[in-house]
Amino acid sequence: MTERAPEAAPPGIEEIRRAAGALAGLLPLPTPLVYSPALSERLEAHVSLKLEFANPIGAFKLRGGVFLAGELADELRSTGLVTASTGNHGQSIAYAAGLHGLRAAVFVPEGANPDKVASMRRLGAEVREQGARFDDANAAALEFAAERGMRYVAVDEPLLLPGVATAALEVLDPHAGQQPDTELVIVPLGAGSGACGWILTREGLGAACEVWAVQSAQAPAGHDSWREGRIVQRPDATIAEGVATGTGFEVTQAVLRDRLDDFLLVEDEAIAAAVVELLEHAHLLVELAGAAPLAAANQARERLRGRRVVLVLSGANITLAQLRTFLATD
Amino acid sequence: MTERAPEAAPPGIEEIRRAAGALAGLLPLPTPLVYSPALSERLEAHVSLKLEFANPIGAFKLRGGVFLAGELADELRSTGLVTASTGNHGQSIAYAAGLHGLRAAVFVPEGANPDKVASMRRLGAEVREQGARFDDANAAALEFAAERGMRYVAVDEPLLLPGVATAALEVLDPHAGQQPDTELVIVPLGAGSGACGWILTREGLGAACEVWAVQSAQAPAGHDSWREGRIVQRPDATIAEGVATGTGFEVTQAVLRDRLDDFLLVEDEAIAAAVVELLEHAHLLVELAGAAPLAAANQARERLRGRRVVLVLSGANITLAQLRTFLATD
Repeated sequence: MTERAPEAAPPGIEEIRRAAGALAGLLPLPTPLVYSPALSERLEAHVSLKLEFANPIGAFKLRGGVFLAGELADELRSTGLVTASTGNHGQSIAYAAGLHGLRAAVFVPEGANPDKVASMRRLGAEVREQGARFDDANAAALEFAAERGMRYVAVDEPLLLPGVATAALEVLDPHAGQQPDTELVIVPLGAGSGACGWILTREGLGAACEVWAVQSAQAPAGHDSWREGRIVQRPDATIAEGVATGTGFEVTQAVLRDRLDDFLLVEDEAIAAAVVELLEHAHLLVELAGAAPLAAANQARERLRGRRVVLVLSGANITLAQLRTFLATD
Repeated sequence: MTERAPEAAPPGIEEIRRAAGALAGLLPLPTPLVYSPALSERLEAHVSLKLEFANPIGAFKLRGGVFLAGELADELRSTGLVTASTGNHGQSIAYAAGLHGLRAAVFVPEGANPDKVASMRRLGAEVREQGARFDDANAAALEFAAERGMRYVAVDEPLLLPGVATAALEVLDPHAGQQPDTELVIVPLGAGSGACGWILTREGLGAACEVWAVQSAQAPAGHDSWREGRIVQRPDATIAEGVATGTGFEVTQAVLRDRLDDFLLVEDEAIAAAVVELLEHAHLLVELAGAAPLAAANQARERLRGRRVVLVLSGANITLAQLRTFLATD
C-alpha cells in the first residue's frame, strides 16, 4: 500500500492559484455564477447560483480529482488510484484517472445511485459494490489498495483541496472574480472538501465573505463534529447521498473548526422541496445535495435579507426515479 | 413610431468581437461547453453541450438583447423598447432594458408560458397578452410602438445578431475558443437569430464547422422558407414555444439561404423525449426548443458518428407542468 501522505498544511492561496492554472484547459472553467431574479425575489436578497454541476461528471468534485491525478500521474503510471464513494467523488477519480492515463478502481456501497455508478464504468473505472453504507465501501477500498500497491484516495484527502478550492477563487478573487463582494456563501458538506475550499480561499484572499455549511438532519455527523470540536459518528439515514456520511473527517474538520461561520441542518424533506423549487424558479436541475444550500437559505431567510448571497449548486446527478418522486409529492 | 432601422449588412467578425467585449462583465460569459460522456456513448460521437441557459433569464437570447439595449440606450432614455415574444426574447428585452435603465413593453400571445411571463414582469417590463399566436401579439406591439414613439424590436432585428453570435465565437475562436475544431453544430431555429450567429461567426473566422438548424415538424415555416428560398407561412401547432412561429423571417432567412448546411424537422414527440433524455443522461434541464438539437441528433445519428458535435441547449424555461407531463408519458 502506498502510505497516506503525511499531514500537510492545508493549501494556501498560491497553491490554489496553481491548481486553477493546472485545471485551465482540462475542465470548462470558470463555472458560471448566475444571478437569479426569481430566487432573489423569493428570499429578498441578491441571490446568485454557482453552477458547479457544469462539467462532464456533473459535480464540483471533478476539480479536486483532476488536480490530484495530474500531481500524481508520473508516480502512478503502473499502479493507479483506488477510492470509495457514494458517487460523485468516484466519478471524479474515474474521469481524472482517464484524463491522465491512469487506472482507477472505485468502491461504492450497495444500492448506490445507479446513474453515478454507470457513469464511473463509462469513464473506464473498475467499480465494486461493497457493504451497505459508505464506511463499508471505504474499508474495502483501503484493503484493495494495500493488496495491489495502488494509491488510496480518501474523500478528505488533502491533495483534493487545491483543486476544489478553485471554485471559490473564481468567485472571490478581488481582480478577476465573478463577485468579490459576496457577503455569504452556503455550501453543502459531505466529507467537507467543498466547504474547506471556500474557507481557505477566503482566508488566503483576506475576503470578508461568510461561509456556512449545510448538511441533512438525517446524517449530521459533520455538523455534530464541528459543533463538538471533535470527530463523532452519527446515524446516516439521509436520502441525499452527496452529503451522506456517518462520521466527521479529520482533515476537513481541522480546517473548518474555528473558521466556518455557521453550520445548518435541514430536513431531507426540505432538501427535496428545494430540488423542485430550483426546477420551478431557476429552471435548473440539481441533485439533493446540490439543493441543500437553498433549503438552508429558506430556513434562515431572516438572516439573508438584503445580502449578496451565493448558493453552491454542487452537483446534478439525480436519477429520473428520484425526480419523478419529488415532483409527484410536491 | 421609431422607424425600423434600414437594412444593414449582417455583422462581420469584428462587430461580433465588439459585442463580446460589450457583454463581458454584464453577463456570465462564456457559457460552458461541456463534454457529455453519456450522450457521446449513445450517439457514438464526441458530443458537447453549449449551456446557453446559464444566465439570469435562462436563454441564449439575452446576449442579443443586452447588446442591443446598450447600443440604443442613449437615444431611448425617454421612450424605451417594445417587442413581441412567445417568451425568451421578451425576457431578454425586459432584462436588458432594466440593465441599461430603459422602459420596456412586451406583447405575448394569450396562454404564453406563464414562467416566462412572470419573469418579464419581475424584470420590470409592462407585459400585455394579446391574440392567440405570436403574429397577433406582434401586430399589437407594432401598433403600440407607433402610438407611443417607442423603439419596436423585431425578433429578427439585425441589431440582435452581434450579441447572439458571441456564443459561436466562444466555441469557434481559433485562439481562445472552447472547441475551434468543432465539426458540426446543431441549433434550434425560431426567428433564426441563433442559427445566423453561428453562420456569421463561422464565415468570419473561416472555420469549417457545419451548421444545421432544427425546427418542429408542427411549425415548419422557417424550414420551409429555407427549402423554398422564399418567405412562406405555415401552420404553427408546436408545443415547443421557443421554435414556434408561423412565418419565416426576412432578415435571418437572407443570412441562412445559401449558407446553412442542413435543416432538420423533428416531431414534437421526439423533442419531448429529448427533454427527458437530457434529464436522465446529461442531468440538465432544458425547455423544448433547447432539446430540439438532441432530437435532431438522434434522428440523424448515422451522419454524426465519430464527429465532434456541439448541441446548443438554447434555453431552460420549461414549466413544472410541462415537466410532469413529459416525465409521466416517458
